Amino acid sequence: MQFKTSLLAVCTGSLITGLSTIAIAQQPPMENLQSSAPNNWGKWGEEDQVGALNYLGQTEVRNGIDTIQSGKTFTLQIPITSGVGPVFPGRIPTQHFMATDAGIYMAGKAEPAPGGMKYSDDVAFMYLQGTSHVDSLAHAWYGDQIYGGKSESTTVDGHTHASVAEIGKKGIAGRAVLLDVGRHMGSDDLHRLATNTCINLDDLKATAETQGTTINKRDILVIRTGSIARFWEEEPDEEWNAMNEPGLCHSNELLNWLDEMETPMIATDNIAVEKVVQEIDGETYIIPLHGALMRDMGVVLSEIWWLDDLAADSAEDGQYSFMLVAAPLKMEQGTGAPVNPMAIK
Amino acid sequence: MQFKTSLLAVCTGSLITGLSTIAIAQQPPMENLQSSAPNNWGKWGEEDQVGALNYLGQTEVRNGIDTIQSGKTFTLQIPITSGVGPVFPGRIPTQHFMATDAGIYMAGKAEPAPGGMKYSDDVAFMYLQGTSHVDSLAHAWYGDQIYGGKSESTTVDGHTHASVAEIGKKGIAGRAVLLDVGRHMGSDDLHRLATNTCINLDDLKATAETQGTTINKRDILVIRTGSIARFWEEEPDEEWNAMNEPGLCHSNELLNWLDEMETPMIATDNIAVEKVVQEIDGETYIIPLHGALMRDMGVVLSEIWWLDDLAADSAEDGQYSFMLVAAPLKMEQGTGAPVNPMAIK
Amino acid sequence: MQFKTSLLAVCTGSLITGLSTIAIAQQPPMENLQSSAPNNWGKWGEEDQVGALNYLGQTEVRNGIDTIQSGKTFTLQIPITSGVGPVFPGRIPTQHFMATDAGIYMAGKAEPAPGGMKYSDDVAFMYLQGTSHVDSLAHAWYGDQIYGGKSESTTVDGHTHASVAEIGKKGIAGRAVLLDVGRHMGSDDLHRLATNTCINLDDLKATAETQGTTINKRDILVIRTGSIARFWEEEPDEEWNAMNEPGLCHSNELLNWLDEMETPMIATDNIAVEKVVQEIDGETYIIPLHGALMRDMGVVLSEIWWLDDLAADSAEDGQYSFMLVAAPLKMEQGTGAPVNPMAIK
Amino acid sequence: MQFKTSLLAVCTGSLITGLSTIAIAQQPPMENLQSSAPNNWGKWGEEDQVGALNYLGQTEVRNGIDTIQSGKTFTLQIPITSGVGPVFPGRIPTQHFMATDAGIYMAGKAEPAPGGMKYSDDVAFMYLQGTSHVDSLAHAWYGDQIYGGKSESTTVDGHTHASVAEIGKKGIAGRAVLLDVGRHMGSDDLHRLATNTCINLDDLKATAETQGTTINKRDILVIRTGSIARFWEEEPDEEWNAMNEPGLCHSNELLNWLDEMETPMIATDNIAVEKVVQEIDGETYIIPLHGALMRDMGVVLSEIWWLDDLAADSAEDGQYSFMLVAAPLKMEQGTGAPVNPMAIK
Repeated sequence: MQFKTSLLAVCTGSLITGLSTIAIAQQPPMENLQSSAPNNWGKWGEEDQVGALNYLGQTEVRNGIDTIQSGKTFTLQIPITSGVGPVFPGRIPTQHFMATDAGIYMAGKAEPAPGGMKYSDDVAFMYLQGTSHVDSLAHAWYGDQIYGGKSESTTVDGHTHASVAEIGKKGIAGRAVLLDVGRHMGSDDLHRLATNTCINLDDLKATAETQGTTINKRDILVIRTGSIARFWEEEPDEEWNAMNEPGLCHSNELLNWLDEMETPMIATDNIAVEKVVQEIDGETYIIPLHGALMRDMGVVLSEIWWLDDLAADSAEDGQYSFMLVAAPLKMEQGTGAPVNPMAIK
Repeated sequence: MQFKTSLLAVCTGSLITGLSTIAIAQQPPMENLQSSAPNNWGKWGEEDQVGALNYLGQTEVRNGIDTIQSGKTFTLQIPITSGVGPVFPGRIPTQHFMATDAGIYMAGKAEPAPGGMKYSDDVAFMYLQGTSHVDSLAHAWYGDQIYGGKSESTTVDGHTHASVAEIGKKGIAGRAVLLDVGRHMGSDDLHRLATNTCINLDDLKATAETQGTTINKRDILVIRTGSIARFWEEEPDEEWNAMNEPGLCHSNELLNWLDEMETPMIATDNIAVEKVVQEIDGETYIIPLHGALMRDMGVVLSEIWWLDDLAADSAEDGQYSFMLVAAPLKMEQGTGAPVNPMAIK
Repeated sequence: MQFKTSLLAVCTGSLITGLSTIAIAQQPPMENLQSSAPNNWGKWGEEDQVGALNYLGQTEVRNGIDTIQSGKTFTLQIPITSGVGPVFPGRIPTQHFMATDAGIYMAGKAEPAPGGMKYSDDVAFMYLQGTSHVDSLAHAWYGDQIYGGKSESTTVDGHTHASVAEIGKKGIAGRAVLLDVGRHMGSDDLHRLATNTCINLDDLKATAETQGTTINKRDILVIRTGSIARFWEEEPDEEWNAMNEPGLCHSNELLNWLDEMETPMIATDNIAVEKVVQEIDGETYIIPLHGALMRDMGVVLSEIWWLDDLAADSAEDGQYSFMLVAAPLKMEQGTGAPVNPMAIK
Repeated sequence: MQFKTSLLAVCTGSLITGLSTIAIAQQPPMENLQSSAPNNWGKWGEEDQVGALNYLGQTEVRNGIDTIQSGKTFTLQIPITSGVGPVFPGRIPTQHFMATDAGIYMAGKAEPAPGGMKYSDDVAFMYLQGTSHVDSLAHAWYGDQIYGGKSESTTVDGHTHASVAEIGKKGIAGRAVLLDVGRHMGSDDLHRLATNTCINLDDLKATAETQGTTINKRDILVIRTGSIARFWEEEPDEEWNAMNEPGLCHSNELLNWLDEMETPMIATDNIAVEKVVQEIDGETYIIPLHGALMRDMGVVLSEIWWLDDLAADSAEDGQYSFMLVAAPLKMEQGTGAPVNPMAIK
């Protein structure tokens, strides 16, 4: 019995397997790329597990509060629909099943509890990064060290350093700015960036300037590309693809600016914050900004947000800064965890 | 082959099965109990799906903001530890597995992606109400109608009315007060209520008075019993039990007061908000307040919170009111969903 | 936020949802179609749960044994590869994860057990009909009755009548014949039937005749179409589709013959035994043979078998009858269960 | 927030964690213990993946067939009941959920398919060794080598050598003998061994002699202890425990005899074939026979069988030899896989 190898190779599961279909044989050049880039290891102590979130203290919370005017709120998670993505290749969408519902009473298989109460209950099987989520600082790395210089072996069988539970325990609250790059640079009336678009530092600055938005030190950056909305709208569905999404691109200018700005976190409405495949100096890199931001600088990344409603409202009232409150689930030893962030304007 | 029936009856799974072990054969008396109690069906339109959360508008958000003084924050979810509860009988704790980690590189089974990046990834199998969570308004009912008068058949194969995703889409933000009943009425130095303690309206008021806390209309009530902390501390573990937790008890006084106060939501550090088994006028009821609050009044219930750190801080500085921001995951058709609430003082 | 309805409709999960995309509004005509067809309800007692498997007794086991010549064996399950189908629309392939492996020792996260032993362990999330499997007699029905005349409500929250565990407890052992229709009627050198091919009674008889195979009463019929092999070979993968597979087609002649032959079970190398969509007298039916065979006659159906190796061997030695031993997992209350059948020649 | 460490240590999940609660700090002595014991590495080629199953060829199949007299059959899997064990500490019982059932029609949420057919469907989340199962030859090892001398790193992220799928592909068929040690040595009228009983070679031989059973070379040994039956019968349930089950104990006599007998496989009605904790020469070992039999000799182990019905029948008719047909699911890269074995007498 000889089964089709190519199919097995594509489908057997890991994120890595998906990526390796575009792999090129050579030595990993991330070390060279990052040789002169900012590095925050040890900045918040040897045992730090939340990185640049340390920038967010009580002062920054109050700065966020100061942006609030009307009290209008927005929830920024995409809905979790059983069996529906978007997800990165190798993952599957959340699977949702009822454990019990009114059917058992209708079928005469259960009596109400004493007094007459009835119940429903349900379960989910889910990739923890299969919806809007916050990455732990240990989710991606290069060489044999994760954020803070800890060994990559800390990820084995569950993250025993810098798991997403540490971010869940601290929580995220502070001043955030929406940078609607999709609206500023988008080529269509849906205000979406074209596939494969690189977002550079100049684009962020130009967007802020067009919006009239001041980016302060320690602001959380919320960047809209319009990509996730395309997932629900594309016909046929196959055109949407995690591998060709627009996103941030690596540059020393960007890294240095983020470092100077003491940016605690970047959130986006695409799957990887950055453009997944990037060419730098003739070299192919897969998600190099995860290496630069997450592993070297400790900047928290959060992905697959729903920003269209917030963006439409901001376009109308011109208010692009807001209080952001986001706390991912405290999944012990997790690589990442779902989050339903709230923006308060 | 004859397997032990009692074991199967206890273990085969549904919440209902667990409860029915204490069932008494008789007609459901919830209708009588609630005949003169408050009912909010239709108050926010026939198609309303979030009930008393409608009380929370922009004014209430600003009222919450006004409580903030220092900017100190607390995250109120219990940690999700793979295989560890507490959970209601019939549920199992979250199961967490790595989909990939550094082991595959150490074993030489995968190459880093082009450029050198490596990744970890993970999955979870979970009961959606198996950690700190928000109940949907359709999670519990009596008769054949759920909240709003919709048929119980809307719960079958997934909630098509009043699912938790509706609460996730609205989000929860407003002024909250911590009522530390465990500290006020607790019999030990851990400030925990004894098992099987009923919390009545007078207890809430006395606690507020002792604390010097003013409860305003439309305040979210966060009630501490100390019960979840007992789960981690009891020796042996078997003494902790969802069925004997302290909690709110049903009374018309309580319901009328909550209705007058336009309480949008009640959150607690036990599994069911209320005492699971209650005797009222010689009748045994299982979670009757779910019928009164959730089904009839549309008050949102949220359970299994971690309140000890917040409570200790409040005992120290005397500030028991705070901004609460909580948004459960937008699980479409879900009975409930995990949440990591944040308190900002 | 308006998400693409068509996507949700296709993906939200149930088998039914997938099928309903080709639904036509009208009254169910299964009752008319089956009005004069064989029905075995009550034949083996009112509480019977295994239907035509009752035909398989000790005599039939010995008849199977009598076919054995060389002692050569074949296992007939397709491999379960994590994330790889084929599955019916609405299902997902099995997901496999390690719970522990040597990585934890290599990472220094666990010590060997006393004495030095180490272990691996793993879990799977699976649709029970997502690989080679046996259907329970309650898996499909029409009207409001399942096999034996029991109410369809017996399927709610788990099959309490005629679950697959009953078949698992009895086990399946007897004389089987391979009918290699793919080889007999196939148009290519891979001996596969074209997509959408109907297999009729005459095709079965002609195949048996060409093979020189005598079909005895109470023989298990194992029918090869070549369809599952196409799943692993098609380029691109999208051409394989559960909805266009070749398979048996409904006719009274077929049903009467199977009834006369006292056929206990039919197994095939496609997903539904039958052609999923059938036109009969101008009417569209979805899997009508499930109604005729499973629900009315109690014939056990088993699907997604791997028959190519057995078929190649049979083509070589001309022996098409063999001892079949197959016992699906005893999944209590299950609709179906995985099986790895063995053929012994 | 300080959670109870002991609870976390016990419950966080891996098999290893459970075992380590009885660990004693010292150097692993398995190498010494096995220094003069039989080793079959390379005996069936460097790339062999099924070990002593190679002893089972067409001759052995025919030998099994020759034992058949009446054609009576027995299925030897325990039932899989959702949420019910027994399982080894660190595992959880199978979780079973309906994906769809008649409730959706009764609730008016789905129409029958064209023609009128309706369906049910279901899923399971399961530990692959959480019911009657066959271990792969790579499931347990000592040092840094698994069976055949391959590196333990082959187990990482899925077994790429000697996975259970290899056993599933070969299948198991041959002559087996039931050794009802529980009946021979059991102290009660339920014919069960006392907890913590060691079964030695002499016990096996004495049991065979008492039964009048001849054990031939290459016979599959099926050993009954009565332990799994106790799981369903004990009151209270807590008395049953994987750690105190009776089982085989390590000795060079036993190993040499099994080697001389060319025993392909040992199956039992306890969780580990052997007594989990064994004291040998003052040293504590956890499942040392897994090291000796599985890793060194390639003998296939299969556990948690249901043998009481077969044993009762054998006690009555005196026939203790039978044809065994067992094929575990072909779980690619699996540590083990469920099986529903059939005995044919």
